[in-house]
Amino acid sequence: MYRSHTCGELRLSDINSTVTLAGWVQRSRDLGGMTFIDLRDRYGITQLAFNAEDDAEMADKATKLGREFVVQVTGKVVERSSKNKNIPTGEIEIIVTALDILNAAKTPPFTIEDNTDGGEELRAQYRYLDLRRNPVQEKLKFRNRVALETRKYLDSQDFIDIETPYLIKSTPEGARDFVVPSRMNEGQFYALPQSPQTFKQLLMVSGFDRYYQIVKCFRDEALRADRQPEFTQIDCEMAFVEQEDILQTFEGMVKHLFKTVRNVEFSYEFPRMTYAEAMEKYGSDKPDIRFGMEFVDLSSIAKGHGFAIFDEAEAILAINAEQCAVYTRKQLDTLTDWLKRPQIGAKGLIYLRVNEDGTYKSSVDKFYSETELKKWADAANAKPGDLILVMSGDLEKTRKQMNELRLHMGNELGLRNPNQFAPLWVLDFPLLEWDEESGRYHAMHHPFTSPKPEDMHLIETEPGKVRANAYDLAINGVEIGGGSIRIHDRDLQSRMFDLLGFTKEEALAQFGFLMNAFEYGAPPHGGLAFGLDRLVATMNGSDTIRDYIAFPKNNSGRDVMIDAPAPLDDAQLKELGIKLS
Amino acid sequence: MYRSHTCGELRLSDINSTVTLAGWVQRSRDLGGMTFIDLRDRYGITQLAFNAEDDAEMADKATKLGREFVVQVTGKVVERSSKNKNIPTGEIEIIVTALDILNAAKTPPFTIEDNTDGGEELRAQYRYLDLRRNPVQEKLKFRNRVALETRKYLDSQDFIDIETPYLIKSTPEGARDFVVPSRMNEGQFYALPQSPQTFKQLLMVSGFDRYYQIVKCFRDEALRADRQPEFTQIDCEMAFVEQEDILQTFEGMVKHLFKTVRNVEFSYEFPRMTYAEAMEKYGSDKPDIRFGMEFVDLSSIAKGHGFAIFDEAEAILAINAEQCAVYTRKQLDTLTDWLKRPQIGAKGLIYLRVNEDGTYKSSVDKFYSETELKKWADAANAKPGDLILVMSGDLEKTRKQMNELRLHMGNELGLRNPNQFAPLWVLDFPLLEWDEESGRYHAMHHPFTSPKPEDMHLIETEPGKVRANAYDLAINGVEIGGGSIRIHDRDLQSRMFDLLGFTKEEALAQFGFLMNAFEYGAPPHGGLAFGLDRLVATMNGSDTIRDYIAFPKNNSGRDVMIDAPAPLDDAQLKELGIKLS
Repeated sequence: MYRSHTCGELRLSDINSTVTLAGWVQRSRDLGGMTFIDLRDRYGITQLAFNAEDDAEMADKATKLGREFVVQVTGKVVERSSKNKNIPTGEIEIIVTALDILNAAKTPPFTIEDNTDGGEELRAQYRYLDLRRNPVQEKLKFRNRVALETRKYLDSQDFIDIETPYLIKSTPEGARDFVVPSRMNEGQFYALPQSPQTFKQLLMVSGFDRYYQIVKCFRDEALRADRQPEFTQIDCEMAFVEQEDILQTFEGMVKHLFKTVRNVEFSYEFPRMTYAEAMEKYGSDKPDIRFGMEFVDLSSIAKGHGFAIFDEAEAILAINAEQCAVYTRKQLDTLTDWLKRPQIGAKGLIYLRVNEDGTYKSSVDKFYSETELKKWADAANAKPGDLILVMSGDLEKTRKQMNELRLHMGNELGLRNPNQFAPLWVLDFPLLEWDEESGRYHAMHHPFTSPKPEDMHLIETEPGKVRANAYDLAINGVEIGGGSIRIHDRDLQSRMFDLLGFTKEEALAQFGFLMNAFEYGAPPHGGLAFGLDRLVATMNGSDTIRDYIAFPKNNSGRDVMIDAPAPLDDAQLKELGIKLS
Repeated sequence: MYRSHTCGELRLSDINSTVTLAGWVQRSRDLGGMTFIDLRDRYGITQLAFNAEDDAEMADKATKLGREFVVQVTGKVVERSSKNKNIPTGEIEIIVTALDILNAAKTPPFTIEDNTDGGEELRAQYRYLDLRRNPVQEKLKFRNRVALETRKYLDSQDFIDIETPYLIKSTPEGARDFVVPSRMNEGQFYALPQSPQTFKQLLMVSGFDRYYQIVKCFRDEALRADRQPEFTQIDCEMAFVEQEDILQTFEGMVKHLFKTVRNVEFSYEFPRMTYAEAMEKYGSDKPDIRFGMEFVDLSSIAKGHGFAIFDEAEAILAINAEQCAVYTRKQLDTLTDWLKRPQIGAKGLIYLRVNEDGTYKSSVDKFYSETELKKWADAANAKPGDLILVMSGDLEKTRKQMNELRLHMGNELGLRNPNQFAPLWVLDFPLLEWDEESGRYHAMHHPFTSPKPEDMHLIETEPGKVRANAYDLAINGVEIGGGSIRIHDRDLQSRMFDLLGFTKEEALAQFGFLMNAFEYGAPPHGGLAFGLDRLVATMNGSDTIRDYIAFPKNNSGRDVMIDAPAPLDDAQLKELGIKLS
């Protein structure tokens, strides 16, 4: 071992010990006769002291150490005259008697400090240096704690960690698969799993009863800030359970994680809301309920007053921004422009100020009397000083736009404190969603989700209205996890594939093994999966999952540090039996 | 929840409780008026009792349940009149008052019993049914315990679990990569990692100090019984350590695993042996030291007696099979034939019986006098009743063949008790090995392994003699893990790539990121990786890793259950920009 102690562990009680430390030169201060060096490792920082009067040669050597040099020092622990109360080792320093340079370092391309001067691209290219910075290390340590506590909790609940294969079969349903040509089976391909879904269901058929895995999954999709081509799931499945059992079990897990890793205790049951209610009140299936500002439907009171835009609209939705009557015309114009950007695509924004004196000011007051406007204010529960914001149009689009506006106003008004956590179960998702492009229904969750028995009568006539035994957990407006009770009956599963437009042959070729398994005694089962990357970021009050991944890919799916993907040489392609087209 | 209790938990103390159980019909016995059913779940078996006199309809329903039906029953716990001492629930049974068939089952294609009648192929095709069998479930539960205790130990030693990417860059060094075409970067490919080697080294450069990961790795190689295209490693790396620190840390881990999971305690330090000694004494770099039978070099005494085969041989090696003088001529012929099979390729086998009366009988006694043969016996420390087996030829080949013979004799003589464990560290592996096919040196471990400083003077003149700071842990003749101290100096790493025949350009293109990282303050570091599949199998006294994998692939790399790999449709190929050749 190159050290007797780490750079984070020496205290006043160690005074007069002789110790050996190893680490990186964080900072060097040459104060004439004295040189001080901050030596850093994963565990902390310890100050090294060199006195030119005592040992000129050593002090000279010390002044020549550059930033990020790796050194080993031996010396005596002494009490510092000027103590640093900000760090746990701040009461001591080391009078160095031996100094060994283990490795030199070129000047790093950006500063290895909490606040670095390096831009995003440069830091991505030198990710191994960015990972030296304290805030980045803390994020990965946090992730490690979350993963380990997840395992402890699930183990305590009799879940078994079972590894499922990474080289599986491509299935055209859903997102695009990454595929892997097989050299031993030329012309054939494996696919990387988008999730271990069918395997975990087979494990339930096998009687494992409770399964979990923290597992990489892969989707070849266009990337966004919160999407990576490879991502990590906490993947779970249980047999002989109903939805309530699953919600209880995983609410327990999330509470355990917050308590053990964040010291946040939830003394209440997580609130629950149906998908229908979430869409009605928040226009989102993952509402941020840290704040209210629920949608108010103005249709019945705002229609029929000659304002054509409202009269023709399918929906007229409002939110009440409390104490925002002070917004100037300019502020409202800026807000309107923000909503009109193509990312949101709103046509416009109507406002209603409830003045402090009880009068009203609206952008449409030539169509509405004070009495009519008062009805709006009453419906929105607005008080003097509040500002009502109204959008209208097609129901679905208006909800989406209003959701964006609500979240934006939440940010503006400081209602979205990253250190406050508002979990919410969203229940009763629709089984299917209509896809305009392909002109058919798609599974909203996946094709293995069980419809609600009480909605089964609608399945032929109004399949879009059938609700599923499917649920999501949202925290602070982020979808953290989701799952469903699964189909465990071959006939129902087969009927589901029909509904989704599979031919019998396609269904058999792709999922025959699962349907066959259902014929040999499949128990009722269900489960869910959490996105670990998002869970960890959200628990830490952040919305950038990339920060919580040691070696993330950029928006083009590239690892710029190792420069992958890359061309293959011809011999490799030939051996695989493929050509570039 | 479909049950109040599992099938493994009811005891005499539960008598008179009303309980609900759910599980699979394991067996049904119709004894006239009484029907007994063994209900099975992951936790155990509980006997259900149906009395036709009390409830004829219910009893009738019970007799109609087939094997592997999934049922839910409610009933009263009663004491059994004829107790089954073999199972924990054997003192009670359930008088069933409600019976609900949750799912019917076709008759399974093989029996779901500890000893099944299903052949290997059939069980592979219906792996989800094979996984129901108790011995198979136990193996995966065992694996789960080993993985979890590994994490607990490493966490207690300050290791951080950090996920490294699965979509990386192909490197021609070593085994073949599986590759993944990138749709977003047409004509370019990711590779699946053969190990996270370079990433864990970068994490050391980043200062994470102690890293671990239980991670899937991929090798597109010809498969054998103990090889799978995807396999799991316990992958570890430490900074600021010397070889001794690594050996201590991971010897501690293995002891922890044996103690917590197998209740086997090692009260001694694992023995250590150099690679050179292991090859000399056992002809193997992973000797099974549960038994002796070490190689004896007869060259100096057996040469020069007119027996041309020996006189011309580079090596004459013997082992002493104790108490095997009773082997008949026929047994010896069988042994010789076994050695002559192409898998081993020996030319022949010479024997020397040490008879009980002290006389000798050898297949070559026309060349050797009793006095000469006595020298053989003395060299091999043979006593009356022992049998000396001798092979000769090229040193390397003879060692390999003798190793096979030694292991075979160990099996024959019952010296390889699967419940006895003999760990052994093998040290000082050669840095390089000569590859006849390519006519150049290959890295024996990998190109990042550090040569021993004391052998550095040989690196230009006799590179094959340079030893590495590389080590393996073998248990019972199985390589469980291995690792090395790594190079952390750019110049040395660059020199190593030269030695391995890389051009400067190739080295930079493939590993430039690592060599660059070494310029920014890389600490001394090293690590190792355990093969989890093999570790688990070996700890459980088995040599079939496939049994410890939930969904293994066959020898052609196929998953016969899901039928993968499989052809892709043309649209998918087109989107990926590739064609079949």
